[in-house]
Order: sequence, then structure tokens, then C-alpha cells
Amino acid sequence: MGRTSDARERLVAAATELFSERAYGSVGIAEIASRAGVQKGSFYYFFSSKEALALAVIDQHWAWQRGQWEQVLKSEGTALEHLRGIFDATTRMQARALQGTGSVTGCMFGNLALEVSSINEPIQKRLQEIFEQQVEMIGGELRSAVEAGQLSVADVPTAAKSIVAQLEGLVLFAKLFNDPAQLDSLWANSLQLLGVAAAA
Amino acid sequence: MGRTSDARERLVAAATELFSERAYGSVGIAEIASRAGVQKGSFYYFFSSKEALALAVIDQHWAWQRGQWEQVLKSEGTALEHLRGIFDATTRMQARALQGTGSVTGCMFGNLALEVSSINEPIQKRLQEIFEQQVEMIGGELRSAVEAGQLSVADVPTAAKSIVAQLEGLVLFAKLFNDPAQLDSLWANSLQLLGVAAAA
Repeated sequence: MGRTSDARERLVAAATELFSERAYGSVGIAEIASRAGVQKGSFYYFFSSKEALALAVIDQHWAWQRGQWEQVLKSEGTALEHLRGIFDATTRMQARALQGTGSVTGCMFGNLALEVSSINEPIQKRLQEIFEQQVEMIGGELRSAVEAGQLSVADVPTAAKSIVAQLEGLVLFAKLFNDPAQLDSLWANSLQLLGVAAAA
Repeated sequence: MGRTSDARERLVAAATELFSERAYGSVGIAEIASRAGVQKGSFYYFFSSKEALALAVIDQHWAWQRGQWEQVLKSEGTALEHLRGIFDATTRMQARALQGTGSVTGCMFGNLALEVSSINEPIQKRLQEIFEQQVEMIGGELRSAVEAGQLSVADVPTAAKSIVAQLEGLVLFAKLFNDPAQLDSLWANSLQLLGVAAAA
């Protein structure tokens, strides 16, 4: 308890767990500090508010997820195989959460978007940026596929947004039904959205 | 204030507003009673808990939304026109919320699914039933279109679920960006999901 050297990291890790398990509004600073093994009074040495901590949690979680996506995008394979790799990573993450915690935790960004975005502008803006980056990353891959002649999509940004929306919608079902298999149709649906259903 | 004759209805109406505006967990019984103009002590005459009230709110909201959907489904037109009518009603609802409250409120069922489903089993079960009914209603329309030769879909339940997921994902974006125009691609996306892109 109380090793200040890594107290900030432990606060972020504890808040990441708690914000994944429960609603943002139901998690208090005392509980976060307690789970992190940090004195509540020390919390404010690292973060000015729960919101400031939440922004750090969001940034770290996105850095991690973006890193995973980038690894897939840099790997061998076609643009469509990369897309599939990103979806498989998402499905595995939900399945792992179910094994670890007994619950499909869903997408932290989607959870916070619905709960917090209308009442907290800094968090809303950060989440907007993250979803725009996701759409941009998927869009870049679609553009590569179009340039390589593997795909014919007239409006790449709209197609990319459709795919991220489909992902978020199915992750919502996975969380509601506590069942990662809700994501099973994601790949076939995405091919349909891209007009390459026959290639499934 | 305090006309008990319609106090129950006023509690449900106040809670519907509050659960649309903010997270379920951040709304207390005192605030609901206050907005309804009902004494806090009288709350428990009508509802045993906030959860019991939430279930009544969910049921009433779904009865209303299902009624709207059924009206569209019973109207003149093809199955695909019905589908489009349901989407148009959804988009109008989000635009109206923006005009009325300054915020796109999103889908109450989606909001609650992400916030509450992992911690409240009765609400989770009710929301599961509602999304299953939505998929069933969309699926019935797709089946009609297939029987009428307007559509060729191999797996109707999966196609119907894709469409509801796409709807929920784009409503999430509409809420996050506070912009009903995020839903503009819903119809084209749904046609893609159904493999009838050319008919758009």
C-alpha cells in the first residue's frame, strides 16, 4: 500500500477496471483510491478531479487499443485481412473479459459516450476524437484496398463509419446479452457493408 | 402539485425525461419526485424502488415506440418502404430531442443497456426482450420482402440483427456528436447490409 512511485499508474489501472465494470457516475474517488491502494488524500496530488483521471484512463486505453490496431495494420496480409484481424482482436477482448470478470464489459468508449457525453464536454470531445481516429484508421485501410483494386467503395469515410457503427452496435448486444458470440456476424456484416458479400 | 390521481403517470413521465437526459445512476428518487410534483414519501406508494419505476418507464417507452413502428408497418407500401419509415421516425425523434432539450438523447434502451445491464438483472432481461422484439419486427418485414420477391436474404434473423445494431451504433454517434445527421447514412447502410445497394 502507498508506494507513491507508481501510485499514479495504480490509480489509472484501478479506474480503468472500475469504469469497465460499472457506470462512470457510480464510481467515486474514494473507491478508486481504495482499489489502487492509494490514500484518498493523495489522489489530488496526481489528479485534480475524477474527470481528469477519466481523461487519463481514456487516453491510456486508446493508446493501448490503437497500438493493437496498428500492429494488425502493419502485419502481412491484404487490407481486408487487416480489417478482419482488428475485429478478431475485439471479439477476443470481449471473450477475455467474460472469462476474467464474468461479464462482457463492452467498449469503454461506447459506454462512456452514452453515459457521459451529454453532460461532460471534455470527455465528449476526447471520445469524438477517438471515434474519428478509429473511422480514419479503418478508412485508410479501405482506401488501400480500393487502390489495390480489391474493393470498390464510392464513399470511403461513410463506409468506414458504417463499419465502426456496426462494431459498436454489436458490442452493445454482446454486453446486453453477456455473450461475445453476438459479434459472430461482424465480419460477414462488414463485407456486406463494403459490397463484397460474395467474398466471405 | 400533488394531485394523486395522476401522480403515478407524472412519476413515470418525470423519470422518462430524467433517464433520457442523464445516466440512470445519477438520478435519485428525490429528484424524480420533485420534477413530478409528487411528495417523496408518496413515491413508495406507487413504486417499491427506482428499479421498479425504471421497469415501468422502459415498458411505457417501448409500448409507445412499438406503437409507432406498428403504425409504419401497417401503412401502405412495400416492406422496404416500411423499413425506411421506421428509420425516418427514429431520425426525427433524435432531431426533435435536439430542438427540445438541446441534446440528442439517443436511444433510452441503448443507454440503459450499456450503463445498467451488467449490474441489474431485471432491467437487463427487459432490455434483452425489447431488442429481441425489435429484431423480430424488422425480421418479419424482411421475410415479407423475401416472400414478395423484393429481397434475397439467406439468413433473415442475422440480417435483422445487423440492421438494429447499425441503428444503435449510429444513434451512439448521433448522441456523441450531438448531431442527428450522423444517422443520414442509415438507409444506404441498411440497403448494403441487405445486399440491395443498387436500389438506393
